[in-house]
Amino acid sequence: MDPDFTDLDEYLDEHDLDGYLVVADESDANQRYLSGFTAPDPFTTLYDGEVHLLVSSLEYGRAEREARAATVERTADYDYRAKVQEHGASEAGHRIRTEFCDTYDVESVATPSDFPVGLADGLREQGISVAPDEDDVIQEIRAVKHEEELEHMRTAQRANERAMATAESLIADAEVADDGTLIYEGETLTSERVTEEIEVSLIREGHALDTTIVACGADAADPHDRGSGPLRANESIVIDIFPRSKATGYYADMTRTFVKGEPSDTIREWYDITQEAKEAALDTLEAGVSGSDVHDAVCDVYQDNGIPTLRDDPETSTGFIHTTGHGVGLDIHEFPRVSTTENELEAGMVVTIEPGVYDPEFGGVRIEDIVIVREDGYENYTEYPEQLVL
Amino acid sequence: MDPDFTDLDEYLDEHDLDGYLVVADESDANQRYLSGFTAPDPFTTLYDGEVHLLVSSLEYGRAEREARAATVERTADYDYRAKVQEHGASEAGHRIRTEFCDTYDVESVATPSDFPVGLADGLREQGISVAPDEDDVIQEIRAVKHEEELEHMRTAQRANERAMATAESLIADAEVADDGTLIYEGETLTSERVTEEIEVSLIREGHALDTTIVACGADAADPHDRGSGPLRANESIVIDIFPRSKATGYYADMTRTFVKGEPSDTIREWYDITQEAKEAALDTLEAGVSGSDVHDAVCDVYQDNGIPTLRDDPETSTGFIHTTGHGVGLDIHEFPRVSTTENELEAGMVVTIEPGVYDPEFGGVRIEDIVIVREDGYENYTEYPEQLVL
Repeated sequence: MDPDFTDLDEYLDEHDLDGYLVVADESDANQRYLSGFTAPDPFTTLYDGEVHLLVSSLEYGRAEREARAATVERTADYDYRAKVQEHGASEAGHRIRTEFCDTYDVESVATPSDFPVGLADGLREQGISVAPDEDDVIQEIRAVKHEEELEHMRTAQRANERAMATAESLIADAEVADDGTLIYEGETLTSERVTEEIEVSLIREGHALDTTIVACGADAADPHDRGSGPLRANESIVIDIFPRSKATGYYADMTRTFVKGEPSDTIREWYDITQEAKEAALDTLEAGVSGSDVHDAVCDVYQDNGIPTLRDDPETSTGFIHTTGHGVGLDIHEFPRVSTTENELEAGMVVTIEPGVYDPEFGGVRIEDIVIVREDGYENYTEYPEQLVL
Repeated sequence: MDPDFTDLDEYLDEHDLDGYLVVADESDANQRYLSGFTAPDPFTTLYDGEVHLLVSSLEYGRAEREARAATVERTADYDYRAKVQEHGASEAGHRIRTEFCDTYDVESVATPSDFPVGLADGLREQGISVAPDEDDVIQEIRAVKHEEELEHMRTAQRANERAMATAESLIADAEVADDGTLIYEGETLTSERVTEEIEVSLIREGHALDTTIVACGADAADPHDRGSGPLRANESIVIDIFPRSKATGYYADMTRTFVKGEPSDTIREWYDITQEAKEAALDTLEAGVSGSDVHDAVCDVYQDNGIPTLRDDPETSTGFIHTTGHGVGLDIHEFPRVSTTENELEAGMVVTIEPGVYDPEFGGVRIEDIVIVREDGYENYTEYPEQLVL
């Protein structure tokens, strides 16, 4: 992949800065994208029209082979050890990075806004001007995906769907005890058990995740609740899975809602309206529209059906109480927004569309697809069926 | 658990600062320790002798119930939405956190050195004095564990040992093909396959990991190489597992080295010397000694046996080319150091002892235990046997 950093060049020109500096490990999406390199410990990437890397000796050979960089240097090239002896580890780090910038005649840098303040202040003391980039220009560049990235995300979504199928079959195959709890192979079927099987399925396909949501009943009415304890019949079970490929770092994201047994009329109605809201969003989606137009389409469907939305009632704690979606890529939440914020959607952006309805009295319903914005519409990564009743 | 923040009070007194400010999510160990709270999105913790939390409405109820805080406030209490409309999201964030500090008459704060510079500069513009804490005083406090934390780490180490047993039995049960590669149940046994079984074992015990090392032959000669491809007989296989409990956030850490078949004389010798080096380190270990004394004990054993060490030859790329160990807790690498750096070890600290020898010509050997420093010695968490030949 050969990213287009024209917008970064323009950003630096516009702000009259010599370079863009990132010091972070591979878990930082901007670092991974700018450097084209992964390492478990923080390393230094300087962009001045070309990419320059400063890494420890341990990473040097691999960085030379793998990184998308014009030059790769070692901390040892800047007498790091001697500087640690003389100035301590923190200031030694400031000094070698200042000298590294000097090598490329860089006296002023933009940094991501989450760049460490200790290092920023240290560089400033050494004479480098440091300007945090509140616009997150690299995240904006990352928002439009290359074909290679789209393929990575397709792979992640296929793994995601096999994990969802594992979860669905546990619920479908469960029996219902007299008290309404689900029983699978003689044991109570819990959120934790379903989560474990989702994770094992993903691990076996080379994907990892930090969190999964398997939330039943009142838990499902809180979009942030991961769920716990026994799953019950006749209540909605929201399953939201967002795995990351261990090889590529790219995410997928999908939610389905199931009921084992007989859903209440309310849940059934919410499910139908949520499907309608998702379709309304997808009908609106194409390059050139604002994320807020897509969000409005969802809110309109809910409002028309008497379900409160945060857009129209900022105080509501029930109804559609989150945004319609978000960009996905090397981060699970990234540009663009699909919310009340205006931002133009461009072809090649990947976003989730995830309308949902929540009320502790009845439970929750959410349906989420992950889709690519195209010139004349969208392409849906998501092939997983929507079936409420199991 | 009721952490003792006396050292933090002293730090603030000494630097004439009103408070300590952390803005981070649950993946940040200092945040987790200071707030006693976990949330997937960044939240704000202010310490001024007491702990004050500022969280989104979504997290408010849970924070009130779960956090170890004197007060919990909502971003909505500071008119966050109105400020976003007026000033944009970044400056709104700076403003509400400034007002939050004002509530507690805090005009100057220390922050972790990796506090985001965009926010630090924003607070400064609003009149808050921000001083990055290069000493990492909270990490220093975290280094001495409470009994509850020691118990969490014991649990993580038990899960770790069952995962190691899974890995060991795959290698032990493998057959050897004519070309020397290992075959398990008819398929080539690879690093990736062993890693997968380790991860599945840990997932089933409620533990997660980002990385595992299963490195054979020349891969094993690079301490940072995670390993890949087929495992081979008669070569050393280094397995290093460091899982984190998903419930508590605490890590364990252990390494073992195996050979299927017949080790070379060199590997056998390295293994014996490394066992001796580990014993020498443990014999030195007790409250009051410096981490560097423990590291010296290891280096002395290697040097006496003609194996180069970085301590005595900073240019060597073979031999004992890393430090003896590191603290473990909510981070996999934390205070104290067991290296050339002088730092006094205190009772209740948890450290790894992990001597090793590396040379691409012969492979690598590492043996790592995780132990608690006690007043009169140490307590070894590690119950896993050391057996080179399988």
